[in-house]
Amino acid sequence: MTDPEKSHYYAVIFRSRRTEVEAGYTAMAARMEQRARQQPGFPGIASFRDPEGTGVTISYWESRDAIRVWKQDPEHLTAQELGKDNWYSEYTVEIAKIESVYHFPPA
Amino acid sequence: MTDPEKSHYYAVIFRSRRTEVEAGYTAMAARMEQRARQQPGFPGIASFRDPEGTGVTISYWESRDAIRVWKQDPEHLTAQELGKDNWYSEYTVEIAKIESVYHFPPA
Repeated sequence: MTDPEKSHYYAVIFRSRRTEVEAGYTAMAARMEQRARQQPGFPGIASFRDPEGTGVTISYWESRDAIRVWKQDPEHLTAQELGKDNWYSEYTVEIAKIESVYHFPPA
Repeated sequence: MTDPEKSHYYAVIFRSRRTEVEAGYTAMAARMEQRARQQPGFPGIASFRDPEGTGVTISYWESRDAIRVWKQDPEHLTAQELGKDNWYSEYTVEIAKIESVYHFPPA
């Protein structure tokens, strides 16, 4: 990346606590990850959940517009409603602009 | 928070892969989390690691200055060197400005 402006990208940090409702969760989570990966401007995703039910998914996006489009995706809207009604007791979504990145070992 | 400018804060997203070296790791990780919590401008931390050794720690900060001060903390500098030499095969540090936040259920 030669243009520093274009090295900016976005992360959506989704921290959540699960309910004990399992029905439909795993299939929907897999489906949404698959569908997110097919969206334009989607560079990647990393997901973790501890045995107590607290988890985080960080998805990376090229722009806020790409995030907005994904938030309004019809299947994703259905998943969001089901998530609030069934699978999550609480969650926080943070939209973050990545300003600096360091790698070890250096690229 | 009444001033929207002041609702901006920062996240440091530390994604890492561990080596198989255990010696000293758990104690240092606990020590660094304790020490980070004592830094000025440190609102919180969330940490996850899967059984395969991939993990993420997200720490939250009030400003980039607070992040800079913590990066240069003498004990933290020692931990960073030990981490590169012993505990991490690779990691990525992303410094991100939080632009929007949503909670469920709404506060």
